[in-house]
Amino acid sequence: MTKKLLGIDLGGTTIKFGILTQDGTIQEKWAIDTNILEDGKHIVPDIVASLKHRMGLYGLTKDDFIGIGMGSPGSVDRDKKTVTGAFNLNWAETQEVGSVIEAELGIPFAIDNDANVATLGERWVGAGANNPDVVFVTLGTGVGGGVIADGNLIHGVAGAGGEIGHIVIEPEDGFECTCGNIGCLETVASATGVVRVARRIAEEYEGDSPIKAAIDNGEAVTSKDIFDAAKDGDAFSLIVVDKVSQYLGLATANISNILNPDSIVIGGGVSAAGEFLRSRVEKYFTRYAFPQVRKSTKVKIAELGNDAGIIGAASLASKFMTD
Amino acid sequence: MTKKLLGIDLGGTTIKFGILTQDGTIQEKWAIDTNILEDGKHIVPDIVASLKHRMGLYGLTKDDFIGIGMGSPGSVDRDKKTVTGAFNLNWAETQEVGSVIEAELGIPFAIDNDANVATLGERWVGAGANNPDVVFVTLGTGVGGGVIADGNLIHGVAGAGGEIGHIVIEPEDGFECTCGNIGCLETVASATGVVRVARRIAEEYEGDSPIKAAIDNGEAVTSKDIFDAAKDGDAFSLIVVDKVSQYLGLATANISNILNPDSIVIGGGVSAAGEFLRSRVEKYFTRYAFPQVRKSTKVKIAELGNDAGIIGAASLASKFMTD
Repeated sequence: MTKKLLGIDLGGTTIKFGILTQDGTIQEKWAIDTNILEDGKHIVPDIVASLKHRMGLYGLTKDDFIGIGMGSPGSVDRDKKTVTGAFNLNWAETQEVGSVIEAELGIPFAIDNDANVATLGERWVGAGANNPDVVFVTLGTGVGGGVIADGNLIHGVAGAGGEIGHIVIEPEDGFECTCGNIGCLETVASATGVVRVARRIAEEYEGDSPIKAAIDNGEAVTSKDIFDAAKDGDAFSLIVVDKVSQYLGLATANISNILNPDSIVIGGGVSAAGEFLRSRVEKYFTRYAFPQVRKSTKVKIAELGNDAGIIGAASLASKFMTD
Repeated sequence: MTKKLLGIDLGGTTIKFGILTQDGTIQEKWAIDTNILEDGKHIVPDIVASLKHRMGLYGLTKDDFIGIGMGSPGSVDRDKKTVTGAFNLNWAETQEVGSVIEAELGIPFAIDNDANVATLGERWVGAGANNPDVVFVTLGTGVGGGVIADGNLIHGVAGAGGEIGHIVIEPEDGFECTCGNIGCLETVASATGVVRVARRIAEEYEGDSPIKAAIDNGEAVTSKDIFDAAKDGDAFSLIVVDKVSQYLGLATANISNILNPDSIVIGGGVSAAGEFLRSRVEKYFTRYAFPQVRKSTKVKIAELGNDAGIIGAASLASKFMTD
């Protein structure tokens, strides 16, 4: 029987698992809740127990697997296979992850941070079409991403490669970012960033708009509300989406002027707006990209959704292939 | 005897040659004028003749060399070892370069574009300190550069990786660039770009300044004049240098937010301003870089000067090493 890959996507709410073929097809997947109590000390044992349980259920042994890959929040030491400062897991201190899982299961283990792992997934079987040059931008609670250049995931000298959310796109007049800088992409293109842009535009907008009215009345408005209203033709919301798209177009064009990837893949919750968002980002991308880049780099929407994590994690384990 | 590397830096005015040891030390170097007459058809034969002449002079044969590397202007096909559209050589049509040199000399040949090759040089034995993650920005007649990420020179899908000069840093109010876009780094940080920034600031500046007076009088002012005056304390020129440094700080910080290289190395004629420029770029780099990037990525001035080309070209040839 051909050996399989195991992918684990460790998140603050759930831990997702997948058993994949060597070509990236998910054969089995499941999830368990993340128990972050007691400094997250149950997380690794829960992962081990769940793996053992499922392997028994499917009649699989360690010899059926090439390796296990995992994506984790926090700061990942890929060599020591440890995680530090994953605050949404209550892992402030350095956690032994790989050594425990390898000892308990006898399967080689690899780990990287969650944004990088999702990038690997989208590049492998998603919108990246297995190209050697792909950049992933994820628009969610924050804005993250990953860079694959000449076939390699780029970590940089201190592991901060791919901090796409902290590209400064509004140096003079931008919003303050949680990182302490001003005008980061994250401040205008995350789910809360879109609402922040709407609030600023609402201060000057004079027309009628249910979204502007809701903002002015102090009601809760989400990024999804704004995109939905824009799709329905609300003029105010269309201005907001256009402004967000301009920021994204500038950032993706500048990434491409530096790296000329085959594609920039936009994922995360905000990307649920799909072609409506993509076409608008592309309009500005075209304006800001160098002519040769404009002709060769494509702007795409991610295809894998929540599975990007387990697929990318599994791809990490493919380095243990021996033939 | 240990085998050597041969590096060729092909430019519109001169062709520079170097014989290097495997650790990047130049043992011999020489140059010939570039004869661009008759559609540049003499260039490749001149290179062959010069190589044969010098090898005879030094008593070297093809067996003394691992390989020959070359940096060329224009659009380089690395696989076919041809060059297209090198207009400063009068090479509009595709030129056979590698096939001719390999046939004439019997030494393996590799080629890449001049900016990439200079990047390899600065990374190998210059300011890049042989680190796997280095970005080179060259401020000359134009602004060019190259990206080395995880040990690989990044060409991108259409060879337009490293178009650092076309990062858009002033999307709203920028100058028009030769590429057709608005607000590219090249329009404000090349030698002519610095003067362009000075002209714009001169329109509003009200104080006394010999440089402003020269601009207002329509006299020729160079980038070097402006840097020299700034070093002498001319308040107007200091404002100009500060503005150029801000643009460079923004661009280098954003490159670093994406790639977190060990260093960004600034070279080219404008970088002759040295620490005076570097410290000012670093001030803005620090403002715009993500905290983890700010702590780990360094802004440096190039160290190799005109030798970067032959050294980087020689390093291209090191791929032919067999042991």
